[in-house]
Amino acid sequence: MSDDNNTKNKSNIYDVAIIGGGPAGLTSSTYAARYKLNTIVFSNGFGGVMSSAHKVCNYPGFIDITGMDLANKMMSQAKTLGVNVVFEGIVNITKNDSENIFVVESESQSIRSKKVIVAIGQKRRELNLPREKELVGKGISYCATCDGNFYKEKVVGVIGGSDAAVTAALLLSDVASKVYLIYRKDKLRAVPSWIELVENNKKIEILYNSEVVELIGEEKLEKVKLNTNKEIGLNGLFIEIGSVPNNEFTNKLNINCDEKGLIKVDHNYKTNICGLFAAGDCTDSSDLKQIITACAQGAIAAYTAYKEIIENKWLFDKTYIYIYF
Amino acid sequence: MSDDNNTKNKSNIYDVAIIGGGPAGLTSSTYAARYKLNTIVFSNGFGGVMSSAHKVCNYPGFIDITGMDLANKMMSQAKTLGVNVVFEGIVNITKNDSENIFVVESESQSIRSKKVIVAIGQKRRELNLPREKELVGKGISYCATCDGNFYKEKVVGVIGGSDAAVTAALLLSDVASKVYLIYRKDKLRAVPSWIELVENNKKIEILYNSEVVELIGEEKLEKVKLNTNKEIGLNGLFIEIGSVPNNEFTNKLNINCDEKGLIKVDHNYKTNICGLFAAGDCTDSSDLKQIITACAQGAIAAYTAYKEIIENKWLFDKTYIYIYF
Repeated sequence: MSDDNNTKNKSNIYDVAIIGGGPAGLTSSTYAARYKLNTIVFSNGFGGVMSSAHKVCNYPGFIDITGMDLANKMMSQAKTLGVNVVFEGIVNITKNDSENIFVVESESQSIRSKKVIVAIGQKRRELNLPREKELVGKGISYCATCDGNFYKEKVVGVIGGSDAAVTAALLLSDVASKVYLIYRKDKLRAVPSWIELVENNKKIEILYNSEVVELIGEEKLEKVKLNTNKEIGLNGLFIEIGSVPNNEFTNKLNINCDEKGLIKVDHNYKTNICGLFAAGDCTDSSDLKQIITACAQGAIAAYTAYKEIIENKWLFDKTYIYIYF
Repeated sequence: MSDDNNTKNKSNIYDVAIIGGGPAGLTSSTYAARYKLNTIVFSNGFGGVMSSAHKVCNYPGFIDITGMDLANKMMSQAKTLGVNVVFEGIVNITKNDSENIFVVESESQSIRSKKVIVAIGQKRRELNLPREKELVGKGISYCATCDGNFYKEKVVGVIGGSDAAVTAALLLSDVASKVYLIYRKDKLRAVPSWIELVENNKKIEILYNSEVVELIGEEKLEKVKLNTNKEIGLNGLFIEIGSVPNNEFTNKLNINCDEKGLIKVDHNYKTNICGLFAAGDCTDSSDLKQIITACAQGAIAAYTAYKEIIENKWLFDKTYIYIYF
C-alpha cells in the first residue's frame, strides 16, 4: 500500500501489476484497488476476448449487453477506483529474486511491482493455411464484431461450431446477405439457446462436416475450397476456431503450465513463482471459460496478493496495522 | 431438457431445481435456462444476503449499485430466460434412489427434478443474549438496509467489524443522529476502503474491545450494557456478526459438510450425493465469499448438471443429439 493511502502511482513501485485487461485482469484491478493497493494494469486490447462478443446474455446483472459495453463498464470501474490503466502490452517481465520485486516493461515505461497477476487470456487460433496471414484485412478476419460492418449485403463465411462461431454468424446475418457457417463436425457445440437461433435464421446456411482447405483470391479473398471439393464464393471469412495459450509469455518467466500450455494455479490462484498469480482463460483452473468465472478468479487472485502483502507488512513492519481475515 | 425445447414447466418434472435465490442460485438458473434445461428456483428471500447490502462497489460492471437492484436485475434475467421462479422456501426434499429423482416440496407445491443445486447461503449469526428474540422488530435488527429508515435522527448501534458491519454503520449514518460501531477486537477487519470512510465519518463512534452483554428495555430496546460495564442509550441495534451454515437442511439429506458446517464440493461443485450440487456461501469452496465468486460457482454447478443430463441422454436415449464440450 502506498504511504499516502492512494492507489494512484506516486513512484514507480506498485503493489500489484496486472498483465491483461480482460474480465479477469479488470476485476483483479478493481479488487486490488478496493484493498487500497497501488495498482497498475497493462493491456493492448482492453476487454480481451469479451470485447469481440456482440452479445452477452449470461453475465449476471445484464439481460443483454455487448461485450464492448461490458468491457467499458469494467474499465471505468477500475479507473474510478484509481487504478493506473495503461493501453500497452508488455514487452518484458523479469523478477529480481534478491529484492523479491518484478520489473515490468511496456513500450513506454518500466515499473517495479511487489506482485504480478497474469491475466493474458489466450490468443486466437489460426487455420494455418497458405495465404491466411496476407489476406487478413482483405477478407479474412478473426472478429465479427470489429469487422462485420464491412460486409453489408455481402456473402460471408464463419468457420467454427462454438458459441463464438455461432454468435458471429448471428451477428453477421444482420448485415450480410448470406452467411455460411462452416463446421468440421456434424453437430454444433454451442449453447442450445444459440443453436436454436442459428437454425431458425433464414440467412444462415450451416455446412456440416466441412473444412476450408484453400483460400482463393488475388488482391482479396474471393472464394474458399472445402474438403468436399466444393468451392464457395465469399467476400469475407471469419475464423472462430477457438484460442490457444500464449506460450511466449509463460516461457519467458518459466511459469509451470499443463500439457495444453495453460498456467497451473492452485485454489488461491498462485503459480509456481512466488509473488506471481494468474487468473482467467490463461489458467488451468476451470473447464468453463466464461466472463463470470474469469472475473471470480481475478477477484480471488487480488485477494491472495493482498493477503501476502499485508502479512509481509505485519511480519516486517510492526508499525503497520494488521487486518484480520 | 423438456421435449418442447422450452424452459417453461409443462409437467412437474424438472431438469434442475435450485434451492436459494441469491447470486449463486440465480446465476445457476440463468445458466441452466441458457442450456435449455427445464429449471425452477425456490427462494423465500430473493437476492439472499446480497439484497441487504446498501451499496455494492466491487461487482464487475457496476461502479455502484444497491444489493437490491442487483438482485432484481439477476432475477429479471432468469425470468426472461423462462426460469420458473417460486417465492417460497422449501419445506422438504427427498431423493428417490431407484428413479434417481429428487422430490422438492415448498408450501404450495411438490415437484420432481433430475438434479438439484443447493445455493442456500448461510443464516445470520445471533448474539444469543436473553431477550434478543423478543426485541427483534422492537429495536433489534439484522438488516440495516431493510430497517435503517425507522431510525431517522435516532441513536443506533451496530455490532461487528466486518464489511457488513462497517457498511451498515455508513448507511445508518445517513439517517441516524449518532452511530456506535461496537466491535470486540481492537482493529476493524473490513476492506480498507470502507474502514477509511467509517473512520472519517463524524457521526460514527467506534467502540473497540467492546461486547454487548445485556439488552435493556421494557417494550422496546432502550439501552445496552457492554463488557466494560458502560451503558449506552440506543433506539436501535443492528447485529452484523456474520453468518452460520444452515445445518437443518444439510442434515436432512446427509450432505457431507466440513467442520464449520459448509457443504463439501469438488471443483465441479458436486456434493457427495449423486445429482445434487451446491454453490455459493453454503459451500467450502472459497474463502472469499463475494457476489462474484458465488455467481461463478452457480454457473459451474449448472454446467456440471447440464453435462450429466446430456451424457445420460446420450447413453440411454440414442435419439438425442449429443453436444460436444
